[in-house]
Parts: sequence; structure tokens; C-alpha cells
Amino acid sequence: MISENLYKELSVKNEKKIVLLVMDGIGDLPVGGKTPLESAKTPNLDKLVCKSNTGLTYPVSIGITPGSGPAHLSLFGYDPLRYNIGRGVLEALGIDFKMGNKDIATRANFATIDENGIITDRRAGRIPTEKNQEICEFLSSKITQIEDVEVIIRSGKEHRFVVIFRGNDLSDYVTDTDPQQEGLKPKKCKALDNKGKKTALIVNRFIEEVSSYLKDFSPVNYPLLRGISRYPDIPSMNDLFRLTPAAIATYPMYKGLARLVGMKILKTGNDISSEFETLKENWNAFDFFYVHIKKTDSYGEDGNFEKKVSVIEEVDKYIPFVLDLKPDCFVVTGDHSTPCKMKSHSWHPNPFLLYSTFGRKDPAISFSELECSKGILGNFEAVNSMALMLAHTLKLKKYGA
Amino acid sequence: MISENLYKELSVKNEKKIVLLVMDGIGDLPVGGKTPLESAKTPNLDKLVCKSNTGLTYPVSIGITPGSGPAHLSLFGYDPLRYNIGRGVLEALGIDFKMGNKDIATRANFATIDENGIITDRRAGRIPTEKNQEICEFLSSKITQIEDVEVIIRSGKEHRFVVIFRGNDLSDYVTDTDPQQEGLKPKKCKALDNKGKKTALIVNRFIEEVSSYLKDFSPVNYPLLRGISRYPDIPSMNDLFRLTPAAIATYPMYKGLARLVGMKILKTGNDISSEFETLKENWNAFDFFYVHIKKTDSYGEDGNFEKKVSVIEEVDKYIPFVLDLKPDCFVVTGDHSTPCKMKSHSWHPNPFLLYSTFGRKDPAISFSELECSKGILGNFEAVNSMALMLAHTLKLKKYGA
Repeated sequence: MISENLYKELSVKNEKKIVLLVMDGIGDLPVGGKTPLESAKTPNLDKLVCKSNTGLTYPVSIGITPGSGPAHLSLFGYDPLRYNIGRGVLEALGIDFKMGNKDIATRANFATIDENGIITDRRAGRIPTEKNQEICEFLSSKITQIEDVEVIIRSGKEHRFVVIFRGNDLSDYVTDTDPQQEGLKPKKCKALDNKGKKTALIVNRFIEEVSSYLKDFSPVNYPLLRGISRYPDIPSMNDLFRLTPAAIATYPMYKGLARLVGMKILKTGNDISSEFETLKENWNAFDFFYVHIKKTDSYGEDGNFEKKVSVIEEVDKYIPFVLDLKPDCFVVTGDHSTPCKMKSHSWHPNPFLLYSTFGRKDPAISFSELECSKGILGNFEAVNSMALMLAHTLKLKKYGA
Repeated sequence: MISENLYKELSVKNEKKIVLLVMDGIGDLPVGGKTPLESAKTPNLDKLVCKSNTGLTYPVSIGITPGSGPAHLSLFGYDPLRYNIGRGVLEALGIDFKMGNKDIATRANFATIDENGIITDRRAGRIPTEKNQEICEFLSSKITQIEDVEVIIRSGKEHRFVVIFRGNDLSDYVTDTDPQQEGLKPKKCKALDNKGKKTALIVNRFIEEVSSYLKDFSPVNYPLLRGISRYPDIPSMNDLFRLTPAAIATYPMYKGLARLVGMKILKTGNDISSEFETLKENWNAFDFFYVHIKKTDSYGEDGNFEKKVSVIEEVDKYIPFVLDLKPDCFVVTGDHSTPCKMKSHSWHPNPFLLYSTFGRKDPAISFSELECSKGILGNFEAVNSMALMLAHTLKLKKYGA
């Protein structure tokens, strides 16, 4: 992996354009002998593979199953072990909340405790989202500030909500209050160093106030907080790579991750066709496009093999559309594997395809896990993808004389 | 490679079981066109390969020939460059001496010096082991303590012996006395920092005393000491990986290496069949089994190609026996290569096979250096094997949200 300083030293601006097409959770395991990629009819991807260089990428490290945050940061060229984004920040990104540098975000649950203060249900029976919204509106009308810290409460799905504490001298060096286990009492928020003291005080006051207001919302009667975290201080893709990047994604979390590294978030519709239309419409204004396809992952999580296949086949139809735009470098890959038979993210490496005029001959003849494993790029850590994309668009100067 | 902190953060205990079968020095070079693995009839391993994921592992790093210590630590998931076990400690492990944390171990040679104090033979003509034992018994009766430090002398093979210094305030930050070259004088042991001063003093006093007692043991008349080292402070496999590990090995050094990382050493017989019986007998009590086959390495060191082949064929017969136990993850590999034509350890990577229900399709069709080089795991550092084994038994949580 190249250091950030080396990227800054070597990267140059030019007119060449990169498209990074991420099919979320695309990697899979065979079911009845074939993976979704092997079952899908993908004539366009297969034709592209024959002109591309291929390999398999590890999102974080061999054997590690990544969350969406590290899996994406890695593809964007950022060390996923260095920039570990807190759960609170990811939740804020996921509801499209734009965090500033005085903000501390926390993931929260509406929970149920009994008369002895013991947690009986960490999710308060997974209350309907509408009830969650009602409670959050009520709490927002009651709690707007604690001492000099502004408090922002936003509802999520079911029992989930997000709290933003905005003010001076806040820190994320504090502990969770959610013990992540039922049958225990919620914990107090504790400072892990002197700087965390003010935040711990505000968080504990917040919990007291919320619980006092929750009398009439049974089964909800207590908040549990975790992943209390600051928006990370991360250099932009323009700073590091001299890119003018844009993101085309339909889900808030991926837009949030893209915004985090300084991408412009392009307005697009909810379907795959709109995403590719958006790419075309904005072709002249940017030199790096991240296009995110969510549904491959969603169907993997559902264990729905056929639907995952059908999303792959739909994406395949747009490959000629992208090629017509004449990208100088076109990468098709996943952020991580989501095998249908596991119904969850996994550690298995991702098929990776890179098309450019500077490619070598490659033995892969179709876009699949097995074919890409034969590719000349070999197995490598996904964080190196950025260096490859920059190299294939001549955006990296020679190192040394 | 994953950091120890990340392992601690992500690893979880579950019921799934791992078998790590290490055929010592298994990797080889072709002789007459075939390696021992290619010459051996291994129908069971070949059948297993067709259901497994394969690759080649570097014990330490490309081009590096490892000793048994680093080669094994690496397979156990420990950075072999961080935990460099001293020669003295390895020799102590090799004679089954259980070191404590007040012990400093040193590898020693019985040597010959001339009237001017010049070393004429670093091995005193490789005296017979019986003579070595006689000298060590005599020395042990004469030297039991120097100042407040207990001295323990143990014989090894031919000219080799081990000395343990046991006491307070000892350090291994001292130099060797063996110049590892004939025609020179033995060196004084020197402290490399203030903490080493006491140890250097004791070591030099020890050498004086020993040499004064060696008058009647010609050609032995002087001890040479090297690898003065402390038992390493290494976290256990239970601390790092939440495993309850057991080791099945016939040679003391491998038992010692396993004990070093907190494995329980199971009593077993001297032949391969006993080792697998021991595996079966202890199946319920542990979730990680390290099974060590020594003879592949021994015959490699002897340059005995046919015998190496026959050991591989014998091990092959027990593969169905292991599979009948229904391991959730079964790895077959080597710790390093010991090519018959080199009669020594080498740097060549090891064939590696991982069988689990979460495997992908893999092109390898038999268990050999060449076939494993086609495998979807690619070439990787052996230290990552542990992450793979933990991943394939769902013993690692997701990293990041």
C-alpha cells in the first residue's frame, strides 16, 4: 500500500477518466456448483473481461469480514485499519445527516428496562418505524440543548435512532452505555481520558432526560447508546490523488462514505438505469466516478440467489453504455462478498476487473470468482485498487530517478 | 497480517473445530521431474484437494529460509519477525526443559582451545553423546549456583548442551561468547545495557569455572555460549484467538513451541498412527488441534527421497480418519520446505490446503507444489493461515460497520 505522502508526491492531474463500478457484496460461494456470477448471463462483462486485467481483492486483510465502511474506504484508496469510522458516524451518514467537526454522533436504541433497571429487550420489541418517528419528534421538542451542547435527535428504522451532540470541547474518547446484552443494567458513559469528561457528562445527562420523558411510550422506556464517535479527519481524494470525484449511489450510507472522502454526490433516481444516466449526464464535469449498485448485496443478505443473479444481469446490460463514454480506466468489482448461503458479509476476496488501454493479456474469460482468481493481477488488498486506477490513467509520476 | 489487538477485538468462541496438520519440511524440488508429493500415491489428499481451497505459503517472507521456530510460530498466527525466539530457548524446548520467567537459556558447545586460548575445534571433534552426558553430570555436581543464581546444565547431542541461569535481575541483553569461527579466542560475555551487567558477570564466572573443571575431558576443554535468551513474553492462543488448543507431536522442540503459545500437549506414541489415535481420543475436549509429522523433514534433511515419499503415503491413509471426525476446518500444509536435493530447510513456499464448508471452487486437482500454486488462495504469508482458519469456522466477527 502506498503512503498518503507518496500519493501526494506522485499524483498528477490530467484529463483521463476513471469509472469505479461497485456491485455491493458481489462475491459469493457456489450453490449447486455455481455462484451468482457464474449463473448470470453476462455477455457484456464477459466480453469486457477478455480485454481486461483481473484478480481477487481482499477488502481489509486475508480472513477479515468487513463492514461497508472499511470495505468502501479501502476501494477509495484509504487504509481501512487506519480510518476506522465509528458506528455513530456511519449511522449519521446512513440517514444522510451532514456532520460537522464540532459533532459527535452516536448510534442509539430504544430499549426496555424492568423496575430494577435491568434490560429486558435491547430493541423494545422492534417498535414500528412510525412510533420511533413519533418518539423522536417528541424528544426533539423537549431536548435541544444540554449545558452549552446542542442536541439533535433523528429517527432511524424500527428501534434505531441517532443522536448528534454539537459543541465545543467534545470528544469521542468515551465508553458505550449499551452493554450489548440483555439481563444487565445499562452502563454509565465514562471518559477514557480527561478530554472525554465533558462528553461523558453530557451523554449521561441526556440519558437521564430521555428516560424521564419516555414514561408514556411503553414498551420503550430507556435509550442505549453506542459507537459514540467523531467525524473522522480524513484527507480528500482531491488532496491525495488530485481527482475531481463524483459519487452515484442510491443509499444514504454510501453517499455518506463518498462525501467523507470529498466526492460530490450526484442526484440520481432509485433504479440502476437512472444511475447510469446520471453518469452520462455528468461525464464532462468529473474525472472519477464511483457508481454503487446496492441490490446485489441486499439479495445476498436475503439469501435470494435468483434475484442476485437478475441484478447482475441487469447491470451487465449497461456495460456497453459505460464503454460508449470511453472511460480511460473502467473497474468492475465488489466491496466485499455477501454469499447467499451465508446471508451476511464474508471474508472471501472480490472479483476485480480493470479495463484500460495499458492492460496486459489475461487468462480470465468471464467475470467470476474462479476466473478472476486466474487473473494476472493475482490476489491483492483492495486498498491498492486506487494506485492501479491512477497508474492506468497515467496519474502517477515515476518514483525516484 | 492482522494485529494482535484486532484479533482480540474480533475473535469469538464457538464450538467449531480446526485441525492443522503440519507435515514438517513437506515442500520440495523436483528430482527426475517430480517432487516427493508428486511421486507419492496420495488418493485421499487428492480427493480432499478437489473439495478444498489451495495456495502456497511463505513461512516468513519471500526468499527467507526459516528455522523451525519462526516457521511454526507463523503457522500459529504469530508474527515470526516480532517473536524471534532465542537459540538458547529453542534448545531448551528441544530437550523438553520447561523454562520459567526467571530463566535465561543458552546454547553451548563443548570445544577445544589450544595453549594460547585459540579455538582449534568449535565442536571438540563431535564427541559422542555419552561422553557429553558424563561431562554434564560431572559439571552439574560441581556447579549448582553462582552468587544468587541457580545454574542448570543439561546435555544434548554430540557436543551440544544447554545451560539455564535462574535468578532475579537476569537479562538476555548480553553478547555471545562463541565467535562462531575457529582460529579466534572465545569472547567475553558483555552486557549490552545496564540490565545485562549481572548476567554477563555470571556467564563469565560460569565459563571460568567450567573450563577449570574440564582438565580431564580432552579434547573438550572449553565451553562456547551463544543465543543467551529469555523465554519470550508471548500471548497465548486463547488470549488472542479464544481457542482451546492442543498439540500432538512426537519431538520435544515442537511440543515446546506449542507450549510456548499455550497449547495443551497431548500424550501420544512415537508413530504416525498413535498421533491420529490421540487426535480422536481428545476430539471433544479442544477446538484447535495441531498435529505434527516430523519424518517428512527428517528424510528431507537426509536427502532420502523414497523415504520422504513413503511418509507422505502413510499420512495420506489417515486423511479419511480425520475427515470422519468432521472437522469444520482442516488444513494440511508444511512449516517450510526441506528439499531432498538440498538436505536442508529452504525458502520455497509450502503447499497449503484448506477444507471447509465455506470454500470456493479451486482449480487444484492434487496436493503438490505446482497444483497448489494454481489455487485460489494464491501465494500468501503463512502467518495469515490463522485468520483463514478462524474465518472459515466463523470465529472472527465483522470488522467495522
